[in-house]
Amino acid sequence: MLEQIETIKDLKKLSVSQLPQLCEEIRQKLIAEVSQSGGHLASNLGVVELTVALHYVFDEEDKIVWDVGHQSYVHKILTQRGENFLSLRSKDGVSGFPDCEESPSDCFNTGHAGTAISAALGLAKGRDALGEKYKVIAVVGDGSMTCGMTYEALNNVKDTDMLIVLNDNNMSIDENVGSATLNMSKLRVGKYDRNKERLKRFLLKIPLLGKPTYKFLRWCKRRAKLGYVRNSYFDNFDLKYIGIIDGNEIKDLVYYFTKLKNNVTKPTLMHVVTKKGKGYQPAEEDPELYHSLNRNGAEDNDLQSAAVVGDTLCDMLSQGKKIAAICAAMARATGLSAVRDAYPDAFFDVGIAEEHAVTFAAGLAKSGVHPFVAIYSSFMQRAYDQILHDVALQKLPVTLLMDRAGFVGEDGKTHQGLFDLSYLSQIPNMTVWTPATYRQLSDMIVLSAQADGPVAIRYPKRLLKEERGFDGKWIALTDAESPKLYILAVGAALSAAAQEAATAAEGVTAVEVTTVKPLDMALLQQIAESGAQVLTLEENVICGGFGQAVECALAELSKGKTRVHMLGVNDCFVKHATISQQLEQFGMSQQALAQYVADLLQKG
Amino acid sequence: MLEQIETIKDLKKLSVSQLPQLCEEIRQKLIAEVSQSGGHLASNLGVVELTVALHYVFDEEDKIVWDVGHQSYVHKILTQRGENFLSLRSKDGVSGFPDCEESPSDCFNTGHAGTAISAALGLAKGRDALGEKYKVIAVVGDGSMTCGMTYEALNNVKDTDMLIVLNDNNMSIDENVGSATLNMSKLRVGKYDRNKERLKRFLLKIPLLGKPTYKFLRWCKRRAKLGYVRNSYFDNFDLKYIGIIDGNEIKDLVYYFTKLKNNVTKPTLMHVVTKKGKGYQPAEEDPELYHSLNRNGAEDNDLQSAAVVGDTLCDMLSQGKKIAAICAAMARATGLSAVRDAYPDAFFDVGIAEEHAVTFAAGLAKSGVHPFVAIYSSFMQRAYDQILHDVALQKLPVTLLMDRAGFVGEDGKTHQGLFDLSYLSQIPNMTVWTPATYRQLSDMIVLSAQADGPVAIRYPKRLLKEERGFDGKWIALTDAESPKLYILAVGAALSAAAQEAATAAEGVTAVEVTTVKPLDMALLQQIAESGAQVLTLEENVICGGFGQAVECALAELSKGKTRVHMLGVNDCFVKHATISQQLEQFGMSQQALAQYVADLLQKG
Repeated sequence: MLEQIETIKDLKKLSVSQLPQLCEEIRQKLIAEVSQSGGHLASNLGVVELTVALHYVFDEEDKIVWDVGHQSYVHKILTQRGENFLSLRSKDGVSGFPDCEESPSDCFNTGHAGTAISAALGLAKGRDALGEKYKVIAVVGDGSMTCGMTYEALNNVKDTDMLIVLNDNNMSIDENVGSATLNMSKLRVGKYDRNKERLKRFLLKIPLLGKPTYKFLRWCKRRAKLGYVRNSYFDNFDLKYIGIIDGNEIKDLVYYFTKLKNNVTKPTLMHVVTKKGKGYQPAEEDPELYHSLNRNGAEDNDLQSAAVVGDTLCDMLSQGKKIAAICAAMARATGLSAVRDAYPDAFFDVGIAEEHAVTFAAGLAKSGVHPFVAIYSSFMQRAYDQILHDVALQKLPVTLLMDRAGFVGEDGKTHQGLFDLSYLSQIPNMTVWTPATYRQLSDMIVLSAQADGPVAIRYPKRLLKEERGFDGKWIALTDAESPKLYILAVGAALSAAAQEAATAAEGVTAVEVTTVKPLDMALLQQIAESGAQVLTLEENVICGGFGQAVECALAELSKGKTRVHMLGVNDCFVKHATISQQLEQFGMSQQALAQYVADLLQKG
Repeated sequence: MLEQIETIKDLKKLSVSQLPQLCEEIRQKLIAEVSQSGGHLASNLGVVELTVALHYVFDEEDKIVWDVGHQSYVHKILTQRGENFLSLRSKDGVSGFPDCEESPSDCFNTGHAGTAISAALGLAKGRDALGEKYKVIAVVGDGSMTCGMTYEALNNVKDTDMLIVLNDNNMSIDENVGSATLNMSKLRVGKYDRNKERLKRFLLKIPLLGKPTYKFLRWCKRRAKLGYVRNSYFDNFDLKYIGIIDGNEIKDLVYYFTKLKNNVTKPTLMHVVTKKGKGYQPAEEDPELYHSLNRNGAEDNDLQSAAVVGDTLCDMLSQGKKIAAICAAMARATGLSAVRDAYPDAFFDVGIAEEHAVTFAAGLAKSGVHPFVAIYSSFMQRAYDQILHDVALQKLPVTLLMDRAGFVGEDGKTHQGLFDLSYLSQIPNMTVWTPATYRQLSDMIVLSAQADGPVAIRYPKRLLKEERGFDGKWIALTDAESPKLYILAVGAALSAAAQEAATAAEGVTAVEVTTVKPLDMALLQQIAESGAQVLTLEENVICGGFGQAVECALAELSKGKTRVHMLGVNDCFVKHATISQQLEQFGMSQQALAQYVADLLQKG
């Protein structure tokens, strides 16, 4: 049946009773193909019925904004990207997130949590201003309910014709935290819903009368849910609340969406409960593990930065250090689950609330406890003002642990950690460290607790296993006699590439840059005096990044005599591909680098 | 009486019945001195009783975090800064915001809205981890309730011993917006409170029996408020809610704080209603006007950037342009009140919710309406991720109108607009314009609506009245024959200073830099070929700013031959003083600049 769905128009030709089979086929396709391609499996298995029902009921010109966006696979399969779905998240393949450049069916790019209601409200207000008629729907996970931006948006939806589908699977990435979501779950586990299945089974067993009675009761229930249910939290925002609906029951969903499509003119929140991993036993049982898969289901057992973070913090706690570990809904991915399990009192998961996480850490620092805030580089962007205004301005000893810095590979544009060197360096009082080895990461974590101001440590998922540690200085990896070129490389991949390029060439010294702010001025002085050229390598935008800082420092030190060349990301966003391909795209693969170095040496 | 209060210890020696007189004296001091010194008058008049009661009841080691911080004057007067209070917000004088460097009584620096509960929660969790016993109190205005960060913090306070005082004056800076605050005001205007005064007056007229009856009723009411009042919004966060208390009744406040101090171990929110401007007729009548006063009450009638913004947008709307104007609780200060009054359908005040404001604008842009988001430079920092991830990544035509860019003078460290050139330039697809004249500002607003991507226009409160317009190129203000030095100046004050310095010297060309991203590469090419030196001037941090971009561009164009000198803010936060003094501090006053230029020319 799925093969016959070329466009949404074909979907609309099906009868409601055919939809369960379609959903089953989509589910099988997801399991088969995402296991191969890698990607977000559990969340997409949960929203099969929801997505099919939305497209079945609403019109093609209606706008669906998918919050976070990693649950948009079913939407993509239904909107002409199914054929090519094995290319998911690979170079030139289907993106793992909604992308307006990819299809007109994607109406707004998402990637970070909590943006959908704001964007949908903008679309709805714009629609009204221009006198257009399309419907606007935001699909938001319960995890995003911990997010301040979602609250800000809810606080402004009053009197606007739009639909918010709260896709409640009782989980953001890790388990949900916070009182407001707790409140939702109180609702969720109501007696009513627990008894629903039992009643249905009982009635359907009664011959003749049972089925009509069941149908009548279902009709009553549906009418009641459309009209009378209240929710104390959402009532505050003057939203019409409808719930709780079983989000894996396609017929129910079609019923409610049809009612809403034709009758609603005020903002409405429809609360559906879905099961993450639905229909795939392993994913149902451990949805966190099946949250995001690697290509070909490759086991990810190699040492990761997260493990070093967890171990180092646990070591410090075992020594009685007064520290705390804070994450924003990602304990496992950041390595903090180790702290949670061994030292629960020192662990805080604040939910998807990066802004609060950082200012909360500032408060902890003031009290005398040293906080470690572990948030991916890209998500830390949310807390730029808090880092500047609450931490750095007071010069508070807070350590920012920023995993997934630099190229992140398959997640693509919205998740690249390519801005942190720039946005952190510009902040006064800030120290920025960039480990290349696991040992350095561990050393830096320990050292940062003794610093008298904030320290940001930024690193990718994997580092080098070499035993090089950190003492605050840059490290010469090769030692050419009177070098003609210094390669200054930030981070693991580039440090390794620089070392290889330097070894292969004559008169080149490769330097591992372990601290971007401050720069190693002693070494730069030496370089300035040497008359050698410099090549900087960074997984970061050029503007405001490491290379420019080096160029300006050397201009001063050498009175403009040192020529500085820079490789990095030149003022663009970087799409999904493997990390190697992304390095290659910017001339920083091993091969490209060797060539570039040879050219520089030849030109002199 | 106030004169005898040297420390908080003296305050505690007073009897409760002496406190009203003390409050009156403080109020008179505020009116007399803030009218002279300038500063935030209305909000401080509102919290006299609240502040006195807090310090009277709680201990000196207890921590009070003042959200936003501009309502901390009474606190400062009571904690040894009263004598010097006329120096408020002037160079080396008392800061207009809490500042830990100024006094140990200030426990956490604030300035931007919505940070207090996060910080207080950090202090409280740190206290518990270290086994200390002090109390933690966050004083939060109702305006901050529109702020996502406040919500994120509330969502995490569960089970923590802390007190949140919601200081509700039904106003952030402009009037409050949003459904959640609307919900609060429903509570506020309850029949109960309206009848309170009438009942009191009636009972106190009855001889003998009246006073005891009134006291008994008051006792009943107080007990009831401590125990039974519920609030549907705050119930969601598992907070104990106490309210509504008259926040200008010192005896009531002392009663409730005393009860709370000794009995509360779970998070408690005490909802007090205060009157902004209380006790000063003009400020009570127009608290927005008396929100922030200039030194010596100087009338601020001179033309301001905000007026040009309002006029230009209204002009565009009168021509039928499909645009929208968005602000975050500051319609008057940003100039958008003109749009609100003339074209209410095109106006959106989202509350103190900068993140939502920007992504909402992204949605509007997608719908085909061109949005103008008017937010002060310093507050726009909150939306860094939204600018990058929701606007720039999709290359959406959104105009950011960033007033108070550069040095802001008296508001000091937390309000300086000294980071925007850096954090905007590093974002791909972004255009950054910097008008020096009102005419350029107006031209840029009109032109930005035709751009095919985001444009940030950053400007200070006042610009130059010269008629120079904007055509996308930099403007040579003086024209030396074969110049030996180019001064490239960003913004009004520096453009004027550069022109003066160039006119006074020989062989110097002053250039008005109207666009920081992209740079004017044609002019830079010409400069590179000329062999002249370059001096860049910017009211921005050096790191990642204009000067570094120019230096790197010229290094490429001239192969390192052009010497670039930079003036700007070198990696520090800038305290309160006049704007002239701040320019002087960084060597950019007229006089310092003339000297610097003369030195450069002499050295060659």
